Amino acid sequence: MDIKKYIEETGSKAKQAASVLAAAEAGQKNLALNNIADALIESSQWLQAENEKDLQVGRDKGLDSAMLDRLTLNEKGVANMAEGLRQIAALADPVGGISDLEYRPSGIQIGKMRVPLGVVGIIYESRPNVTADAAGLCLKSGNATILRGGSEAIHSNQAIAVCIQKGIEAAGLPKECVQVIETTDRDAVGELLRAKDYVDVIIPRGGKGLIVRVTEDALIPVIKHLDGICHVYVDDSADLKKASDVAFNAKTHRYGVCNAMETLLVSESVAHEFLPEIAKRYAEKEVELRGCEKTQTILASCGKATEEDWHEEYLAPILSIRVVDDMSAAIQHINHYGSHHTDTIITEDYTKVRRFLREVDSSSVMVNASTRFADGFEYGLGAEIGISTDKLHARGPVGLEGLTSVKYIVLGDGHIRQ
Amino acid sequence: MDIKKYIEETGSKAKQAASVLAAAEAGQKNLALNNIADALIESSQWLQAENEKDLQVGRDKGLDSAMLDRLTLNEKGVANMAEGLRQIAALADPVGGISDLEYRPSGIQIGKMRVPLGVVGIIYESRPNVTADAAGLCLKSGNATILRGGSEAIHSNQAIAVCIQKGIEAAGLPKECVQVIETTDRDAVGELLRAKDYVDVIIPRGGKGLIVRVTEDALIPVIKHLDGICHVYVDDSADLKKASDVAFNAKTHRYGVCNAMETLLVSESVAHEFLPEIAKRYAEKEVELRGCEKTQTILASCGKATEEDWHEEYLAPILSIRVVDDMSAAIQHINHYGSHHTDTIITEDYTKVRRFLREVDSSSVMVNASTRFADGFEYGLGAEIGISTDKLHARGPVGLEGLTSVKYIVLGDGHIRQ
Repeated sequence: MDIKKYIEETGSKAKQAASVLAAAEAGQKNLALNNIADALIESSQWLQAENEKDLQVGRDKGLDSAMLDRLTLNEKGVANMAEGLRQIAALADPVGGISDLEYRPSGIQIGKMRVPLGVVGIIYESRPNVTADAAGLCLKSGNATILRGGSEAIHSNQAIAVCIQKGIEAAGLPKECVQVIETTDRDAVGELLRAKDYVDVIIPRGGKGLIVRVTEDALIPVIKHLDGICHVYVDDSADLKKASDVAFNAKTHRYGVCNAMETLLVSESVAHEFLPEIAKRYAEKEVELRGCEKTQTILASCGKATEEDWHEEYLAPILSIRVVDDMSAAIQHINHYGSHHTDTIITEDYTKVRRFLREVDSSSVMVNASTRFADGFEYGLGAEIGISTDKLHARGPVGLEGLTSVKYIVLGDGHIRQ
Repeated sequence: MDIKKYIEETGSKAKQAASVLAAAEAGQKNLALNNIADALIESSQWLQAENEKDLQVGRDKGLDSAMLDRLTLNEKGVANMAEGLRQIAALADPVGGISDLEYRPSGIQIGKMRVPLGVVGIIYESRPNVTADAAGLCLKSGNATILRGGSEAIHSNQAIAVCIQKGIEAAGLPKECVQVIETTDRDAVGELLRAKDYVDVIIPRGGKGLIVRVTEDALIPVIKHLDGICHVYVDDSADLKKASDVAFNAKTHRYGVCNAMETLLVSESVAHEFLPEIAKRYAEKEVELRGCEKTQTILASCGKATEEDWHEEYLAPILSIRVVDDMSAAIQHINHYGSHHTDTIITEDYTKVRRFLREVDSSSVMVNASTRFADGFEYGLGAEIGISTDKLHARGPVGLEGLTSVKYIVLGDGHIRQ
C-alpha cells in the first residue's frame, strides 16, 4: 500500500465532503447523528464481536488489564456511544450564526459568521468510543473528519466506521464526511500530520507520548492538551471549611483525570490550622502526601517533595503540598510549575479574587470551586472533544464552538472605498 | 555573538516583561503609548539622521527606488508613527474584559476573560514604521514584543527602539516589553522561529518569500497572510451600475494592496452587456485585461488568460476576467483559485446572498461592496497588524482582539463536583 497516496486520496475526499457538509442544514446533520445512533444500536452484537477480535489480539500480546479495560466495548458501551450522539444532535448548531452585525460610518454593515474549520484529523489511542464521539462533534460543527485510532482497536474502529458512514449516507450526506484510516501502518500518522493541503487542524487524544509526537511532527495547527497540573491555593483569607471541601474534592473525586488537583498550596498563616485537618481526610482515602519543608514540620508523617514533584501530573492518589508566603508566591508557583490547565483560589477577599483571576495564566481560573468542574459538560458546552492548554484559537474545554472559526461578512449596496 | 543564547535571553526577558504587562492597567499602557509618541517627535531629527545611514547603505547596494522609498523615514513619516500610537492609546483596552458570565445548574458561574497571548515575535521587512505600529498594538493588547526588522533598516529600527523603550520606562513598565533584535545575522530569525519556550506567536509582515520561509521554519503558531487573490462576481441578478462601480473601485482604487481585485467573474447572461462597459472604464486607467475564451469573444482586444492567471496576485494594473455559467461556478472558482482573503458578489437576489455568504470560504465575504473595504480601520478595529487568511484563531483583519485570547473563569462559593 502506498501510504502517502492513500492519505492524499483520503484527504482529498474529506475536503470535498467538507464543502458539502459546511453548507448542510442543522436538520440534515442531526438526522445523520440520529441515524448513526440507530445503526450502532442495531449492530451492537456485531460491534461486540469485532471488538472481541481486538481483545483477543490484545490478550495474546499481553496487554495489561487497564489497557484491555479501555479497549472493551460491551453492550452498555455501545448504548453510551449512541446516547452521546443523540445528545450532540440535540445541541444548537453553531454554524452560520451571525454576530455583531453593525453599520460602519462608510455605510457598509460588518458582522461575523461562524463557520466550520474544514477537515479535522483526530489521532487517538485505545478507547473505541472516541471514534463515535469525535466524529459526532465534528459532524455537528460541519467539519469532515479523518480518524486514526490505535492499531489495537482496529477491528472495533472499522466496525464503528461502517455504522457511521451508513448513518451519514442515509441522511443524504457524503459518507466521506467521516473516514477512519484503514491501515495500522504507523507511517499513516506521519503522512496525516503533514497533509497540510487537506487537513485544517489535528486533534490528538491520548497519553503524553502521543501528544508530544503529534506536536513535534505536525505541519498543521494542533489543538492539544498536554497535561493537567492543577493547583488549589488556600489563602489566609479563606473560609477553611470551603477550603477543606474543595481541596478534598479536587484530589479525591477522581484520580486519573486531567482536572484533578496535583499540588496544594497553602498560605503560611493558615497552614498550621488547615493542614492537619485536611491531612486527616486524605489519610482516610489513603492519599500519599509529599510536602515542602514547612509542610513536613506541620505534618510529621508527610513525605518529602522534590523539585520534580512540582512538575508532576500524578494521576494517582498522591498529592504534593507547599506552604507559601502569600498569594503572590502562589501565583508565581502556579504560573511557573503549572500546565496552564485549571487552578483555583480559596478566599473571601474581594481584592485578591480580582488579582488571582487576572494574573493566573491558565485556561480555567477558579475561585472557591473545585478544579474538577473544568469540563465541557459542566461548562455547558454540551460535550467536549478535549481540553486545550494552548493559548491560540481554543482554550480550555473545546466543544462545538471550538471546532469552528468565524469569517467576516460585509453587506453593502454598491458601496465603494473613497 | 552566540545567537542562540542571545535569542534565549531576549525571550526570557520578554516573558518576564509580558507577565507584568498582562496585569498592567489600561491607563499605564496608554501613558506608555503617548510617551513613545512624544519621544518619536522629539527625536525626529535624530531618527531621520539614523534613517539616512540606512538609505546610504541602500543606495550603495543599488536598491531600487521602490525599495528605497519604503525604507525612507521623513518628518511626515515620524509624525505619522506618533499619530498612529496616539490612536492606539485612544482605543478601548480589550484585556480583562469578561463576557458570558452565567450560572450553571451546579451553581457555579462560568465566564470568559480576555487575556494577552504573551510574547509576540514580529518578523518584517523594509518599512521602519512597522517597528512602532506593531509594538504599539502589542503593547496595548498586553503582549510583550520581540521585533526583527530587515537588515537594510537596522539603524532606523534601533533608533525607533530607543524611543519606544524610553517611553515605556517613563510609564513605569519594564523596557523589555518591546525589544528590537540588535543583530542583522540571519540566524537570529531561525532561532526566533524555534524559541517556543519564550514566544507564543509569530507574525510575519512582508513579501511572500518571507512568509513562506517563516511558516515552514516556525515551531510556534504563526498568524499570517500569504496573498490576496480577491474576486468580484457579477451575478445575472446584479444591478449593473453597482457592479461597474464596485468592479472599477476594487481594481483601480489602489493596485499594490492585498484587498485589490485580481479576477473578475461575470455571469454569462450579463457578460455581453456588462463587459464592454467596464472594459471602457478600465481602458481609461490603462488596466491590462486577460480573459477566458468567452471574454475574448466579447472583448476583441482582450488578452488571453492562462491557468496561471487565475492563481496570480498581480498587485498591478492587470485584471483576469472569466465568464462563468452561474453563481455555483463562481463559488467553485473562488474557493479553488482564491486565497481565502476577500471576495464579493454583486446581486439583488436575496436567496443568492444567503448562499454566497455561507459557501464562499474566505476571511471576508461581501455583498455589493468593494473588496477594498477589507481593512482593520474600515471594519472598526481601529488598527490592524495584518490580515489573516488562516482559519484558526484570527481570521481577516487582525486588530487588538486578534492579539488576545480568552480564558475561562469560574466563580463558586465552595462548590464541589458531585
